[in-house]
Order: sequence, then structure tokens, then C-alpha cells
Amino acid sequence: MEQSTKTRETARTVAPERFTPYSLKESFLQPNTTPLPPERWMAEKFLALSGHPPMALDLWGAERVEPRGDVQAKYTLHVADRSALYELITNPNLAFGDLYSEGRLTMDGHLPDVLTDLYIALDRSYEQLPLFLRFIWRNQAPRSTSLKAAKDNIHHHYDMGNDFYKLWLDKAQMQYTCAYYEEPGISLEQAQLAKLELVCRKLQLQPGETVVEAGCGWGGLARYMARHYDVNVKAFNISREQVEFAREKAREEGIEDRVEYVLDDYRNISGTYDKFVSIGMLEHVGTDHYPELAAVIRRHMKPEGLALVHSIGRNYPMRTNAWIEKRIFPGAYPPSITEFASVAEAGPFSVLDVENLRLHYAETLEDWLSRYEENVATVRAMYGENFVRAWRLYLAGSIAGFRASSLQLFQMVLAHPENNQVPRNRKHLYTSSNVPAEGSY
Amino acid sequence: MEQSTKTRETARTVAPERFTPYSLKESFLQPNTTPLPPERWMAEKFLALSGHPPMALDLWGAERVEPRGDVQAKYTLHVADRSALYELITNPNLAFGDLYSEGRLTMDGHLPDVLTDLYIALDRSYEQLPLFLRFIWRNQAPRSTSLKAAKDNIHHHYDMGNDFYKLWLDKAQMQYTCAYYEEPGISLEQAQLAKLELVCRKLQLQPGETVVEAGCGWGGLARYMARHYDVNVKAFNISREQVEFAREKAREEGIEDRVEYVLDDYRNISGTYDKFVSIGMLEHVGTDHYPELAAVIRRHMKPEGLALVHSIGRNYPMRTNAWIEKRIFPGAYPPSITEFASVAEAGPFSVLDVENLRLHYAETLEDWLSRYEENVATVRAMYGENFVRAWRLYLAGSIAGFRASSLQLFQMVLAHPENNQVPRNRKHLYTSSNVPAEGSY
Repeated sequence: MEQSTKTRETARTVAPERFTPYSLKESFLQPNTTPLPPERWMAEKFLALSGHPPMALDLWGAERVEPRGDVQAKYTLHVADRSALYELITNPNLAFGDLYSEGRLTMDGHLPDVLTDLYIALDRSYEQLPLFLRFIWRNQAPRSTSLKAAKDNIHHHYDMGNDFYKLWLDKAQMQYTCAYYEEPGISLEQAQLAKLELVCRKLQLQPGETVVEAGCGWGGLARYMARHYDVNVKAFNISREQVEFAREKAREEGIEDRVEYVLDDYRNISGTYDKFVSIGMLEHVGTDHYPELAAVIRRHMKPEGLALVHSIGRNYPMRTNAWIEKRIFPGAYPPSITEFASVAEAGPFSVLDVENLRLHYAETLEDWLSRYEENVATVRAMYGENFVRAWRLYLAGSIAGFRASSLQLFQMVLAHPENNQVPRNRKHLYTSSNVPAEGSY
Repeated sequence: MEQSTKTRETARTVAPERFTPYSLKESFLQPNTTPLPPERWMAEKFLALSGHPPMALDLWGAERVEPRGDVQAKYTLHVADRSALYELITNPNLAFGDLYSEGRLTMDGHLPDVLTDLYIALDRSYEQLPLFLRFIWRNQAPRSTSLKAAKDNIHHHYDMGNDFYKLWLDKAQMQYTCAYYEEPGISLEQAQLAKLELVCRKLQLQPGETVVEAGCGWGGLARYMARHYDVNVKAFNISREQVEFAREKAREEGIEDRVEYVLDDYRNISGTYDKFVSIGMLEHVGTDHYPELAAVIRRHMKPEGLALVHSIGRNYPMRTNAWIEKRIFPGAYPPSITEFASVAEAGPFSVLDVENLRLHYAETLEDWLSRYEENVATVRAMYGENFVRAWRLYLAGSIAGFRASSLQLFQMVLAHPENNQVPRNRKHLYTSSNVPAEGSY
């Protein structure tokens, strides 16, 4: 009997049987009686090792462990059972997400705020962690992003079903990357279109030019470029569902002669183009493959072309959180700023411009999360409660990551070194607003 | 008997006795007779190994060696004597500059154009060079930039005498760093002031703020900030002549209460400041010391501060040319883009903005060189012909380096990772022109 796609996806994302790999058999302890002294000690230790976040621990309703004297508890973390505490201590990176998804870890307070405070505390504490704990608690290196593996990785996340993403992404172009809130208070739709416009301006698109896009999502940027800048775009993506959606949209908009969506890996790009663009793909490329990406740009961009690479990043190299890597984004790795710039060095290219849109991603995610919550009943009906909680944690955790600066968002513009026709400055990005009027799309 | 400063400086820069370290004793060959067959072969080989630049070699008037068939000779490189050819072949990086300075290597054609074509050819050829030649022709690692050594390095170049630099730097603020030609055709003075204005805007200076500057040259930026933005600036520099000049200027302008010039190393900065700025010092810091510089910024910049670092750079790591390192800029090393970004990673800081002003530096140097030539008689009277030629080559070679992309100019804005009060975008840099009206300064 063939399972439906949706069911398979749910299983892959939050398969409950995988959720307690380190759980102790509870049979040798009375479940959830008053905490034993070592358990109280463990809870205190957990708070200390987490850098003393403003948080109390509630141990299965039987006891409350307050933070140390000088820290005011703003939130309570409820640990549902004794086994959850053990999992949290032995493998916090993975267990935190899994326990939260299963509802065995709950928090009061606004989830993004709680997590932001937690991240800030964790960041402070890391240097103080005993070496053996850094070793035990470490995240694994991200899995392979070879041609073959990349397909599986991308399928895991992006082929979840377009209906799911439609529930909470912008209605204008279904952008699943950082928006650009040029002014405070603009809508998600406006901010996503402003992002597309900013990217086009950075690339200095001219009518009739050719553009190649590596990793095109649901194809919004390619269609925007074709419609607003009259260019021809060839857009690559290895997610079948996204490519089918993108093609359908281009047909609807009557621009299928100017936008071609190719279901293939960026490593198989052919031809030469005036401009190269990649928005939110580098996170899935893996640093080992940056020289390959650089070679692709080098080979397929014309001498006076420009390239734009947009990616989540870090201030310094850091492994992806185990839970995110395992349950949400297999193979994902946001590069540090020097790793990011190494794409340019591998070309070699001249780096013309780098902009950091970190706080714009926090705003984007806040808009996504609030739409997600508005549609949570539908998500629950589609994938069940564990999934609802897992994705809530992922969105809220990402907000916290960008707010607490453990995540950055870099946009970099590159040119061939010998290209002396580069823009004199960045004034042209700001000669008029990048934001469309509300409702004009 | 004490020599005058100028004489000492001249000697240090172009000491003629150091100019022929690899010269063969000419006694065993008749000087400058018709080239021998091996010499003709060497000349051809030199052109080939240089990547076939559009250049013929004239061997002491006795024979002309044309480039290979498909290359049109645009210029002629005159090699004055047989010994010069040997030096050029055995140690081109050092000998080219030395021979040019001594007048034993001359070129027709506009020097920056000749050198640009030569650099482009060299860049193409490097990968094809036999390994043993890459080894023989390699540049040395730059010398130490420790606290003690840095003082000597800086003294060598910057304490040449203010009168010399006054001859060809801008009259507005004596800026010895890349100007910002916001529009084509503006004067050097306008472009230098536009650079200062751009830097102030990138730093978002507010009245009453405190700024610390690492490596302040003749103090122009510090005075500009105090006068135009009403901030208090403490500016560090280890060049005595520059600091004395800067102090005198501040007194003249009546702003000595707001600008303090400190004759000390950036590593001895104390206090905390709203903003940190360093224009054109990183080239002298040395990559080994980047973490120290990062620590200085980390320690002395307030939590919501901003830092700006401006430096010559490269697309990928490359050693400084031997002649430049030896005769012009001891200890100088322009970092590659990842080395440059490693300052941020060492903090750690968030990189907010990177801008590349490469072609602006070519324009700046063109203006400098043309003023230098206007005043060449004065320079000759001060330091002699060898010096005149050495600095002409240095300025023209730098133009060529920036044009041919072997040199870049990066400006980077940094913030503490936890600073969420960073500017939303870079629009504020361009709300009005950065260029003052001609003659308004």
C-alpha cells in the first residue's frame, strides 16, 4: 500500500519513535515522584551550564528550581517527566527540540523572547563550559551535500507540500528567504517584493540581459526579474514540487518564454549569462563545495557580469544545531563571514559589496510565525500536533538566532577581477523606494 | 657630523649601493656589445614568462626583441646594459623597481598604462610559471610589525618630511588614503572630503560622541569629525612628524579641546568610545596581529558602537612585491578579502557592510601622480633623480595594481554581535551628496 506524500513527510520530520534515543528506561525509577537530590542538582547544573538564563525549571510539577540569586526568572521551563530531564542533560542540542515537539518540554512566555534570552545566555556560557561537556554536547558536522545527497536533503525540507508553505509565506511571491523591510511597519508582501527589487538593483539588470539563478525556490525572483526588468532567466532547483509550481505560475503570468525553470543541480548549469544570482542556496551547498560553486560562477558569468550570493551566515564558524540538522534542514550549514567570503576568493572574484540583513530576517520570521499561528489548526489537521510544535520551535528559534546574533544574513555582490565596468557606488540602490505600494502587487 | 633628516631618508629609500645586489661583475663580458644568443633567448623568455605583455625589449640599443607573433608591441622596455638584463631575469620583483629607479630600465608610453598591461599579463602567466621559477621569483613574507618594528616601518615611509607629501596630496586635508569620487570629474580635494564625509555617515556620528582613531595620518579625519559632527576624537599614530603636524593644525583651527593626537601604537589605546575608526592602517598591522587589533576594538568600543576599518586588500592572498616591501613600505601587507574579514571573526563582530572602492584608488593615484609630476623639479632638488623615479614607479605601479585588480580597497563596518541598534540599511549614506562644493573648504 502506498502512503500519501504528506504522511511520509510527516514521518520523516517528526517520527516519534526516533524522539527518545537516549531515554533511560523509566522502569527502575518511580516515574515523576518528587525529584531526587541528584536530579535537583542536575537541574541547577543545567541552568548554570546554560549561562544562567532568566528561567526557572519546573520538574514535572513536583518541584521548582529557581535560577541563581542575582537572576530574576522571567519564564518557566516545564519538564514533563524525569526521563525528559535526563535526555536534556545528556544531549541538549537534540533533546530540547524533540522534547518540545512531543510536548514534554513547555514554556510560558512568548516563545521567541524565551529563546532569545536562552541563546544570549548560552552564547555567554559556551567559553566557560568544561571541555568534556563541549565534547559531549557538540553538534555533528552537517551531512554530505554531494550531487546525490543534496537531492535527498532538499527533498526533505522543500517538498513538504506547497500547500503547507502557502499557509504562512507571503502571498505575493512565496519567498522562503529573508525579506527587506526598507522601512519599519511594511507588510510581509511589501518587504518580500522590496527584497526582490533590491536584488535586481544590486545586479544592475538591463533589458534583454540573461540571468542564471541557482536555487530558485518557487521561482518568484525569476518571474519578478522577467516582468519588471525584461530579462531572460534560467532558474535551477532540485526540488520537484517547487519547480512544478514555478512553471505553472510562469505560464499563468504568460512569461514562460522568458523564464525557464530547470529541475537540476547548480553544478549542471550550462551556457553563459550576464548575471548570476543565488538566494538562500549557499546554506545547503556545504563549505567543501564552495570552490565548485565559485567555478560555476566563473565559468558561466560573462566578463562584465555581476553575481549576487545571499545566505544565512555566522559571525564565526559554528556547527548547525543537531535538532535543526536532523529534523528540519539536513545538510544545512550557514557559513561564517570568512567562509562566505571564501566563495569570492575561490573564484577569484572581486567582492564589490556585502550587506548584512540580520534583523530583517528576524522581522521576516516574526511575520511568518504569526501567520503560521493563524493557520495552526490547518497545519495540525495536515501533520499532527508534534509537527505543529516542531515547526513553531524552528520558526521561533530562528527569530531568536537572528535577534541574538548567532545567525546573520549576508548579501554579497561579486564581479570578475578584470571587470572595470562596476558601479561607482551603491547610490543607485536608494534613488527611489524599493517598496511597492500596499496592495499594488 | 649629523646628517639632515632628509638626507637620511633619501639614503634609506633609494640607497644606490643597495641597488645592484645581484649584478654580475661585468668584467668578464664586454659591456653592452651585441647581445649574445643566450641573452636574446633570456629576453624572449622574460617576455614569455611575463605572460606575453604587449611590449618589446630593447637590449642596450644593440638589438630589439619583439613579442611573439600574435602580440602587438605597444611599448618598448629599454634595458640599459647587459647586467640589468641579468638582474631582471634572476630577481625581477626587486630588480624591476631598482633598475627603473636607477634609470637602467626605461619605458616609452604612459607609465601607468604600460604597467597595467604588464600586470594583466603577469596575472595571466603566474599559474603557468614553472614551480622552480615561482620559487626563485617569489616575494618574501613581509617583515615583523611588532610594537618595536612597527615604529621603524612607519618611520621609514611616513616621516619622509611633510613638505614632500604636501607637494602632491590634496590641499584640503592631506589625505594619504583612497579618496571617494562620488561623481566622475570632481577634484582630488572634493573627493578626499567626500571620503571623510562617507566615513562619518557610515559611522553614524552623533554630536557629543567619542571616537578613537587608530592610525590618523596628518589628522584630517579627526579634525573633520570634530568640526562637522561635533564629536570628541582621540587619534593614535606612531609617526612623530605626522602627529606634530596634526596637533599644529588642530590648534590653528581652534579645536584642540575636541581632538587629541596621541603619539602611540594602536595597541596602547585606553578608554571606551562610541566609535572606532581606522583608515589605511591595517596594511601595516600584519595578519599575525589582526586578533590583537580585534581585541582592541572589542575592548574599547561601547556596546552600541560602530567600527569602520578601511584598507587596501586583495582578491586572494598574495605577498607584497619585494621592491615595494623593501624600498617603499616595509612590513606592508594588503590582506585578501577573507583575511580582511578575519578581523571581524576574531572579535567576534558582526560585519554590517563592506564596500569596495578599488577604482576610486586608481583615480586618487592618478591625481597624486599628476601633481607629483607638476612638482617633480622640487622633488628632484630635495631627494635626487633616483628618488624621483622610485616614487614615480610606486605611484604608477599602484595605479596599475588597482586598475588590473591585483589591489582592492575595502571599507568594512562592524558592530558588536549583541548590538541590535544597527542601521536598517545604507540609505542614509546617500540622502544627499557627500561632495562639498568646489572651493568651499
